[in-house]
Amino acid sequence: MLRPSLRKNNQMRPVSMETAVNKSAEGSCLIKMGGTHVLCTASVDFAQPTWKRLQNKTGGWVTAEYAMLPRANGMRKTRDAIAKDHRSAEISRLIGRALRSVVDMEKLGRHTITIDCDVIQADGGTRTASVTGGFVAMAMAVKWLMDNGHLRENPIRENVAAISAGLWNGELILDLDYEEDCNAEMDANFVVAESGRFIEVQSTGEQHPFEKSQLSEIMDMAAGGVQKLIALQKQVLE
Amino acid sequence: MLRPSLRKNNQMRPVSMETAVNKSAEGSCLIKMGGTHVLCTASVDFAQPTWKRLQNKTGGWVTAEYAMLPRANGMRKTRDAIAKDHRSAEISRLIGRALRSVVDMEKLGRHTITIDCDVIQADGGTRTASVTGGFVAMAMAVKWLMDNGHLRENPIRENVAAISAGLWNGELILDLDYEEDCNAEMDANFVVAESGRFIEVQSTGEQHPFEKSQLSEIMDMAAGGVQKLIALQKQVLE
Amino acid sequence: MLRPSLRKNNQMRPVSMETAVNKSAEGSCLIKMGGTHVLCTASVDFAQPTWKRLQNKTGGWVTAEYAMLPRANGMRKTRDAIAKDHRSAEISRLIGRALRSVVDMEKLGRHTITIDCDVIQADGGTRTASVTGGFVAMAMAVKWLMDNGHLRENPIRENVAAISAGLWNGELILDLDYEEDCNAEMDANFVVAESGRFIEVQSTGEQHPFEKSQLSEIMDMAAGGVQKLIALQKQVLE
Amino acid sequence: MLRPSLRKNNQMRPVSMETAVNKSAEGSCLIKMGGTHVLCTASVDFAQPTWKRLQNKTGGWVTAEYAMLPRANGMRKTRDAIAKDHRSAEISRLIGRALRSVVDMEKLGRHTITIDCDVIQADGGTRTASVTGGFVAMAMAVKWLMDNGHLRENPIRENVAAISAGLWNGELILDLDYEEDCNAEMDANFVVAESGRFIEVQSTGEQHPFEKSQLSEIMDMAAGGVQKLIALQKQVLE
Amino acid sequence: MLRPSLRKNNQMRPVSMETAVNKSAEGSCLIKMGGTHVLCTASVDFAQPTWKRLQNKTGGWVTAEYAMLPRANGMRKTRDAIAKDHRSAEISRLIGRALRSVVDMEKLGRHTITIDCDVIQADGGTRTASVTGGFVAMAMAVKWLMDNGHLRENPIRENVAAISAGLWNGELILDLDYEEDCNAEMDANFVVAESGRFIEVQSTGEQHPFEKSQLSEIMDMAAGGVQKLIALQKQVLE
Amino acid sequence: MLRPSLRKNNQMRPVSMETAVNKSAEGSCLIKMGGTHVLCTASVDFAQPTWKRLQNKTGGWVTAEYAMLPRANGMRKTRDAIAKDHRSAEISRLIGRALRSVVDMEKLGRHTITIDCDVIQADGGTRTASVTGGFVAMAMAVKWLMDNGHLRENPIRENVAAISAGLWNGELILDLDYEEDCNAEMDANFVVAESGRFIEVQSTGEQHPFEKSQLSEIMDMAAGGVQKLIALQKQVLE
Repeated sequence: MLRPSLRKNNQMRPVSMETAVNKSAEGSCLIKMGGTHVLCTASVDFAQPTWKRLQNKTGGWVTAEYAMLPRANGMRKTRDAIAKDHRSAEISRLIGRALRSVVDMEKLGRHTITIDCDVIQADGGTRTASVTGGFVAMAMAVKWLMDNGHLRENPIRENVAAISAGLWNGELILDLDYEEDCNAEMDANFVVAESGRFIEVQSTGEQHPFEKSQLSEIMDMAAGGVQKLIALQKQVLE
Repeated sequence: MLRPSLRKNNQMRPVSMETAVNKSAEGSCLIKMGGTHVLCTASVDFAQPTWKRLQNKTGGWVTAEYAMLPRANGMRKTRDAIAKDHRSAEISRLIGRALRSVVDMEKLGRHTITIDCDVIQADGGTRTASVTGGFVAMAMAVKWLMDNGHLRENPIRENVAAISAGLWNGELILDLDYEEDCNAEMDANFVVAESGRFIEVQSTGEQHPFEKSQLSEIMDMAAGGVQKLIALQKQVLE
Repeated sequence: MLRPSLRKNNQMRPVSMETAVNKSAEGSCLIKMGGTHVLCTASVDFAQPTWKRLQNKTGGWVTAEYAMLPRANGMRKTRDAIAKDHRSAEISRLIGRALRSVVDMEKLGRHTITIDCDVIQADGGTRTASVTGGFVAMAMAVKWLMDNGHLRENPIRENVAAISAGLWNGELILDLDYEEDCNAEMDANFVVAESGRFIEVQSTGEQHPFEKSQLSEIMDMAAGGVQKLIALQKQVLE
Repeated sequence: MLRPSLRKNNQMRPVSMETAVNKSAEGSCLIKMGGTHVLCTASVDFAQPTWKRLQNKTGGWVTAEYAMLPRANGMRKTRDAIAKDHRSAEISRLIGRALRSVVDMEKLGRHTITIDCDVIQADGGTRTASVTGGFVAMAMAVKWLMDNGHLRENPIRENVAAISAGLWNGELILDLDYEEDCNAEMDANFVVAESGRFIEVQSTGEQHPFEKSQLSEIMDMAAGGVQKLIALQKQVLE
Repeated sequence: MLRPSLRKNNQMRPVSMETAVNKSAEGSCLIKMGGTHVLCTASVDFAQPTWKRLQNKTGGWVTAEYAMLPRANGMRKTRDAIAKDHRSAEISRLIGRALRSVVDMEKLGRHTITIDCDVIQADGGTRTASVTGGFVAMAMAVKWLMDNGHLRENPIRENVAAISAGLWNGELILDLDYEEDCNAEMDANFVVAESGRFIEVQSTGEQHPFEKSQLSEIMDMAAGGVQKLIALQKQVLE
Repeated sequence: MLRPSLRKNNQMRPVSMETAVNKSAEGSCLIKMGGTHVLCTASVDFAQPTWKRLQNKTGGWVTAEYAMLPRANGMRKTRDAIAKDHRSAEISRLIGRALRSVVDMEKLGRHTITIDCDVIQADGGTRTASVTGGFVAMAMAVKWLMDNGHLRENPIRENVAAISAGLWNGELILDLDYEEDCNAEMDANFVVAESGRFIEVQSTGEQHPFEKSQLSEIMDMAAGGVQKLIALQKQVLE
């Protein structure tokens, strides 16, 4: 049975990453995965976050904030609802963990990089697009720090990207759009490093519990997709 | 003395208005005036706002919300600060008044159109760009209502646009960018209708009180600029 | 046609300003313009505001806060609604700009003067009454600073006051009360200095766009009214 | 030993109650007890409070809200701090209980009366002044309801007023001003009905626990003071 | 007439106090008075509270926070409602005053002890149980400070406990449970020290004003109950 | 190398589940896993949640709220910080998904069951203990609904429980306590149904990316632990 998007099971949507889309930010990337568009900016602060300074820790920090614009979806969402949205806070935490996983905080020095991921248009997979595009913005900010003499050594160990996958009508499919996501039996998000190791696996079968073997199969599919995304990251960062 | 932007005193920055930039919204426009970029979306609600219904009033309503993205400026602004920003609320009210001034609320029927103006990048004149681009988004939403049989008659009476002007180094200049705005002696915003009449005049000389004659002269300059913006609105709405 | 208040077009309501109405505040003034009563207090803080100190700026600051008491109007307003009222925040900003425009911040030294304008009873023109009465409270606080040896030189350059005017039934009228304001075609507020120059012009014709010539005429009427208010300020400050 | 105010131990400060000080409110009273000035307004709502309607209860309700203006005290208090002030909420609850205690809710019908007590100037005893002045505002609102044909029978059973008393330097004293209150060993507030019975006794000896006999003696003193306040209430309500 | 609980008028419910119920807290006590269960923990902070430090005061502080768990009552209360509950804030202030009344703040040194009283199950008298159980937690924390060499002298002057009493069906009864409390004509809470002196008397007759003699009688009953509670405190603190 | 708790790698802490610990709630369970104590209550509402009713959906709903008491941890957390804690909101969502996964919403009818999980004492694994104990409270509430004639058929399809596991010092270990959790290289939580299928897998290697094979092995260990927890659930629910 064909998936609603008519794509093959392991086929991702067309992806583009446009860099330097914000003249103020130290790094920025507008990532489009099909109808999902996320504007990612990286802002450098020449200080540790307060909590780290108070604990007398060394090194820097990377943090992320994810939010929807009011009309990113079919129904307009009020700004009040956006501000209190726990789902966004949960996604912000995921993006932060993902990006920190490939950065050596000691080498980053006493800098904080904040990645803002604002969803301009949503069509499924906004959190994974944010990780992938956020990495590009972060890498540009790190380059800016090095080019301007604030860092000697690149603190980024390897690239990282993310993709969604799921079980739809009994089939394992990659990079679900909104319509597919709504009807998926199981829904999973994978953050994978360039080295092929996993940073984060989040898999939920609220409607339909899943077998261990299904998770295993879907992890392979996701790992393949991520490598393509990382190749594109490298290309736009040249 | 040359203005910092090297433009002539009555010269606006390059303007572009891209429409249909959001596939969900009933109307949308990305307006760029030099380095100021504002994403305007129009969302149609098939109901009056609550306050109007409770007062048993007839007709529809147009309202606007203006906000900055965290890194629209040189310094990142926290989302908390954005949510509580009274300046944004004041600008939202201005945009709403400006757009309502050209709409016949009875002809709009029991619909509410919400215009979201999200500043992607700020370089002075964000509120006036929001009025100008917001009109385009609103006009598209009205056309969508008519095309889909929800309205018989166009409730928009005429176009409206806005521009800033000010007194800089003793010279009257049009369409100030951020650097010019910071050093202006007097700062004014004008909302002008296609018919040449004024909807809103806001002029403030906190640093340097101004003469009545100066306001008079600057109003002519602004009226000229607005007519050019309205011509471009008409072109992109064709 | 007679205006509802039966006043002549350029006639203001009876005005009174009672000073020293609060035994704690460094300056205070209860201003009554007809049925509009505003209690203005000036509070001196022997420090710069935080934002100014953090930017290593010199000099002092003047700021204002405007609020309605719950039953200032015909309908009681909840305190929650008052606390979140964006209109009040907008008016607070206007009052602050108006009062700062006549103060030399360097001569004020490292002091912050906060003007609280609490509307006891509202009948139109509360924001302009707040500017006029707020000036009296501020001038008293400045005198207190000088009398107590905290300032050597008076930082106030000239007096400032404000008045509303508008277009009602095709007639230009001064100092609108609530009933007149509700039915005005155009509504404007003017902050004018003793020298006759303008600090702030806010004119809005949401219902009926207006001609440049109308604004010109109304500015003359407002300037005349303000001079009378300033004369009264001087009298009560003796 | 003389108390700081030089008053006799059972001597209250000069009291005045000015009525009809707000042209919108159905009842209003500006009460002054020495340097403590409280503006009390009564607002009638032609409906039960929501919680009562949802529980299908009959009858009306009386509620109160107490707040300080920012500069009521020697130090200016921010409006944010005022909005979150738990002490004010506690006092609001006390005033509400006090006023409800003398009203027959069935006879009040489906009306809600809200008493706002805004402290213009504070010098000790603001909560008790609020009860005493709030009663006057409430009684006027009830009279308004009767005069306008909304009520047939007076729901007020008897007058109620309140006074503070305390232990200062080992002496029992009545109606403490701020300076006396700060140094009191024990601080008590009494709400007493015209019939001499007690509605509320709040007595706290955080610094110095007190004997039962002391409370007994102070209750007599307070009951005497309240009768004088009730006499004045009756006079101004004529 | 028998009270609903079938207890004698001056009979308290079965009481138990279990200590050391929290392995992190410096002191903790789970107090059960019949169906009312309150978990009290004492947390030591090695610093004065900010307000005391800013005022350059010496000595320590004791403060309390009281809250209900969502399902402590028959109806679940939302966490939002709990966070904004003014009744809880009022009770927190009462508990704090009660516990501070028996502590010598100078001897406590620059420590802050925070007593959290979380109501696990509510059946009337939660505030008085919180005072009684909170004292046990505080006393344990003080002992911990002494045992660990942070204090040389015990700053606690004497024990303190609290009990409710009221007028039900014309009878004076002790330690009201929820059902009795709902139908009481008068409701009072008493905080009493080991020495028999009173710290706090709060008596309210919103429904039925009460006579001075009734308060006198009920104070004796409460004082008797408190001595039994203090005896139990001493036993569990051994 | 021995784990800090001296347990074997696949050995859970001592577990107990005490039921009916709250006399008001329709179901309740105090679960203790070593030093982690969570009080779970189930509250039945005889209505659908608002969002479901507005969408005209049939069936009921299960939702969960998770929170820490202020002194559940070694450091006291302020109630303000608790109320705004995004981590708690994220965990609440996880618990809700886990419990809903085993309930047939149609068979539940128009009822909402809210599970409150309040952490009395925290020592690692609070979210998984909340799922396990929350299931017991939910099952009791369902039984209550059936016993009282509100439901004919049991809507619970099977039991569900959860456990944490992780990579510590290169070893895969089960049921991490706080000390182990702080030093884990990889940290994972598993929600598993009685049938052995997985409801949720959350695995994060922020510090150390992990191999697919490691996740596979740890899933087996977790599945074994969950079966023991489910056996205990069945025992206490008899």
